[in-house]
Amino acid sequence: MRSIGALIFPKFELLDLFGPLQMFGMLKDHYTIDLVAQKIGPIVSNGQVSAYAEHSICDEKDYDILLVPGGMGTRTEIDNKALLKWIEEQGQSAEYILSVCTGSALLAKAGVLDGRNATSNKSAFLWVMEQGPNVEWRKVARWVQDGNIFTASGVSAGIDMSLAAIKDMQGKKTAETVANYAEYHWQTDPSHDPFAKIYGLGD
Amino acid sequence: MRSIGALIFPKFELLDLFGPLQMFGMLKDHYTIDLVAQKIGPIVSNGQVSAYAEHSICDEKDYDILLVPGGMGTRTEIDNKALLKWIEEQGQSAEYILSVCTGSALLAKAGVLDGRNATSNKSAFLWVMEQGPNVEWRKVARWVQDGNIFTASGVSAGIDMSLAAIKDMQGKKTAETVANYAEYHWQTDPSHDPFAKIYGLGD
Repeated sequence: MRSIGALIFPKFELLDLFGPLQMFGMLKDHYTIDLVAQKIGPIVSNGQVSAYAEHSICDEKDYDILLVPGGMGTRTEIDNKALLKWIEEQGQSAEYILSVCTGSALLAKAGVLDGRNATSNKSAFLWVMEQGPNVEWRKVARWVQDGNIFTASGVSAGIDMSLAAIKDMQGKKTAETVANYAEYHWQTDPSHDPFAKIYGLGD
Repeated sequence: MRSIGALIFPKFELLDLFGPLQMFGMLKDHYTIDLVAQKIGPIVSNGQVSAYAEHSICDEKDYDILLVPGGMGTRTEIDNKALLKWIEEQGQSAEYILSVCTGSALLAKAGVLDGRNATSNKSAFLWVMEQGPNVEWRKVARWVQDGNIFTASGVSAGIDMSLAAIKDMQGKKTAETVANYAEYHWQTDPSHDPFAKIYGLGD
């Protein structure tokens, strides 16, 4: 049984968060999930509607898996010292670290990605790179795994990445069962990334 | 500008709801979105975490678009007369009606799908069919459009269906822009459904 701490903040991107949580959430015997925010309560997303954070970064709880979504809110949170400190501390103790979209900018700013390979949203890549000068940024990738750190490209890429992380933890068969239950066409190749070209990125 | 009323209830399926809302939510100039539940407050999903309903079915607000997700909670809500009455009334006035997964069982029980073509989750199809004996159920379909009613197959199929609905309302170019921003491989063919076979369904 592993605990997932999924960070949310105002203007997080809905699918960055709930794509991965759909996949992990189906495996109730393997994962518990907490939504964690700076303050307990409703947190409005970038898609107008709100999720409800039942846990706070002040709870002093360590998670086995850290999940950080992106969204326009990352432009504000990139200067939020309390949040970055929580990410840094969770990053030091977590067994796995996952981000989606511009969530990798927060991981980078907190120092979690120093010396690591990582990727991010294709339409915000240059801003993300500025947040982590010591990160080996990979522009063309659906997701990047570097040891225990998985970073996904934009929004829906988090679903493919999460299935890869589940495969890493529980095996291929379980990951495929989860994908089939969700009637999801799992893209299993992390290097297949047609969106990089659309947004003018290349290696 | 169209208003979306997205119904939630205890044990709704996360991606059934937030896949479509990710897509509609990006078009802030075209759609407003309300999460509607029987009671205002946090509503726990089938994936452990909670969304926050800021609106109640008692608000007497009519929506242009009704969205009904599925999830294990539909097995309870199928006998919830107040909820079914709200669905029936919204179904009568809404310009568009959308469901994902076993959400179509609730639409069917409320009479909204009588005489219409519709589909649902592949692993719960027989139960869903029992809720709507007067519906033309389509077993092999990623989603089904019958006039102003779009019903999607399981979980992730709601994303493809939503993009088709956006195409119907805003045109193909807008739908493609949304898919690309979300870095989503949009499956544009509603008849392509390999999951029907996996779950032993055929026409």
